[in-house]
Amino acid sequence: MSNLTLTTAIDSFYPPHRTLMGPGPSDISPQVLQALSRPTIGHLDPLFIAMMDELKQLLKYAFQTENEFTIAVSAPGSAGMETCFVNLIEPGEKVIVCRNGVFGERMRENVVRCGGQAILVDDEWGKPVSVEKVEQALAENPDAVAVAFVHAETSTGALSDAQAISAIARQFDALTIVDAVTSLGGVPLLVDEWQLDAVYSGSQKCLSCVPGLSPVTFSQRAVDKMKARQAPVQSWFLDQSLVLGYWSGEGKRSYHHTAPVNSLYALHESLVLLKNEGLDNAWSRHHAMHQELKEGVEALGLKFVVDEESRLPQLNALYFPEGIDEAKIRTQLLEEYNLEIGAGLGSLAGKAWRIGLMGYGARKENVALCLKALKDVLK
Amino acid sequence: MSNLTLTTAIDSFYPPHRTLMGPGPSDISPQVLQALSRPTIGHLDPLFIAMMDELKQLLKYAFQTENEFTIAVSAPGSAGMETCFVNLIEPGEKVIVCRNGVFGERMRENVVRCGGQAILVDDEWGKPVSVEKVEQALAENPDAVAVAFVHAETSTGALSDAQAISAIARQFDALTIVDAVTSLGGVPLLVDEWQLDAVYSGSQKCLSCVPGLSPVTFSQRAVDKMKARQAPVQSWFLDQSLVLGYWSGEGKRSYHHTAPVNSLYALHESLVLLKNEGLDNAWSRHHAMHQELKEGVEALGLKFVVDEESRLPQLNALYFPEGIDEAKIRTQLLEEYNLEIGAGLGSLAGKAWRIGLMGYGARKENVALCLKALKDVLK
Repeated sequence: MSNLTLTTAIDSFYPPHRTLMGPGPSDISPQVLQALSRPTIGHLDPLFIAMMDELKQLLKYAFQTENEFTIAVSAPGSAGMETCFVNLIEPGEKVIVCRNGVFGERMRENVVRCGGQAILVDDEWGKPVSVEKVEQALAENPDAVAVAFVHAETSTGALSDAQAISAIARQFDALTIVDAVTSLGGVPLLVDEWQLDAVYSGSQKCLSCVPGLSPVTFSQRAVDKMKARQAPVQSWFLDQSLVLGYWSGEGKRSYHHTAPVNSLYALHESLVLLKNEGLDNAWSRHHAMHQELKEGVEALGLKFVVDEESRLPQLNALYFPEGIDEAKIRTQLLEEYNLEIGAGLGSLAGKAWRIGLMGYGARKENVALCLKALKDVLK
Repeated sequence: MSNLTLTTAIDSFYPPHRTLMGPGPSDISPQVLQALSRPTIGHLDPLFIAMMDELKQLLKYAFQTENEFTIAVSAPGSAGMETCFVNLIEPGEKVIVCRNGVFGERMRENVVRCGGQAILVDDEWGKPVSVEKVEQALAENPDAVAVAFVHAETSTGALSDAQAISAIARQFDALTIVDAVTSLGGVPLLVDEWQLDAVYSGSQKCLSCVPGLSPVTFSQRAVDKMKARQAPVQSWFLDQSLVLGYWSGEGKRSYHHTAPVNSLYALHESLVLLKNEGLDNAWSRHHAMHQELKEGVEALGLKFVVDEESRLPQLNALYFPEGIDEAKIRTQLLEEYNLEIGAGLGSLAGKAWRIGLMGYGARKENVALCLKALKDVLK
């Protein structure tokens, strides 16, 4: 017999309909939400396995790669980050970690927890990673096995030159570990052409899928490093040598964990939408919406944190006027306009807002709503 | 410009409507699928935070605990298992691991990857964990810090006596780490009354929610052990000292990762359904449906793997007649009846089926369909 009862009345939860223009989760297409709620089938059902094979193809397209190892980790982007580090870094190994925002610092944490040694390349928040500093760090640490950096810093809105960093890393025979959480689907990311090695992303940014999944792709070099490792991977759940068998399309699938079936339906649908639009068109749309937003917010007197040449279209960090009660304004936007914009994170907390134009959220109606609402509340 | 294109035509995925009577995912109520597809809101939205607070209350009820640390890990049950081990076990520590099926072995793997030493207590597949053997192992290893066991073995359908094992562990001042993936919601599980310390479950079994979340609860003893640890937790994503701040209901929520918003809607809804039915009623329903299934399958000549006194109502492992092409029969059930039953796992592969009666799946219509379909295909 149970003996503890609930003392508060709790009923079904009905969320309001918000317009999501923060740093993610982004607005989701009704088609994706519809796909999400289709009937659950078994994770070993042949039809589900066929769907997963399609999903791999769609992810390869989104990442612009032919990497065989291209999957979605069954957990959020942070777990995708950890997947790359725990599989590729062994105790004692050196990793160059570029830190120009919150997520570079999280990469450092990951290296340390793997027993690795993080060599830091620091750049100011809001600036891109300095390719020169990376080169210098590699020259001083030619034994570094990897260079880890964030392609699109969600905390600042700065875009770094992944292609240039990768080229330098290759010269020193180091792998690249790339955070593409906010870049995938929003700005060009050419995994094969740029020769990136381990790239992870998130479902809830420019893919406009529900949060909870992390697309990951490993180059053959990365797979080789993983296979050659001496120390066992410290995480069972994220050990990709076990997951390889689970996602492989060839015949019998070995059981690893129960896939998040419905979330994968949604990811499949969001990638079908991306494929139907075409990557180039999606990138152009993000750019065009950013231009519209830019004109509007500058007219309101807001200033961008990031210089124009390295500014992400999908994540706009903006200094707000001094002296305003910024939290109160965000609450007002949420309560009166059902509009979510993001607070500043880390060193930008209390100084800047982050306005996301991601995936399905990068639409004229969102920009229009945001500009008018900001104008109203700032006057 | 993108340069890789998709060579195969891929369109939206429409799954068939299956009746799920395998080891999970289980059948899901249409109400839960509906909740799943409600509009996504921000994970830091005050309304979402209030929903998470309700979810904690609902989880406490389901676990029958007042543990303040009661949350849902944003990943599948395997990650819930790992959460318990990486937070509670430090390198060099001894853990008694009870192994009477697949998941006990996975616990051993976890201990080893934490740098711990696993002392194995082996029991035959299909038998419950022997309380006497646990006592003996503790007597021989009084320095063991924890006893880890599976309450309801999904691979065999055996129920172990969690209360008795916990009492022994307490005598030796060892924590208990309990796999309740298949038990939560299906059979009595009284976390506080039985004084269990770290208990994890899965969303996709008797809670009948979508797969991808792992409810976890820690007693104060477990929280104290976690807080007192010397070595940092090897996983950043699963480090519960960071997650504590994220799930705490008190004022400002610190950002850790983006919660799987929609999956949490679904878990909330499935727990509301459980609360409305009442735990005792849910347990009785699972038992009653098991009795109906039992009569029917025995009439068909199938034999239970597990002895009656330790048989789980929600997971029925049954030896099938020798000489049949079991995979072909399961395919026939799937293709002709849209009915999924589970294959045997590990040492029961090729010998037994697993028929799940879990959560929303423990209904008369499911039992009737399963019995008639089995009768048809076995004749």
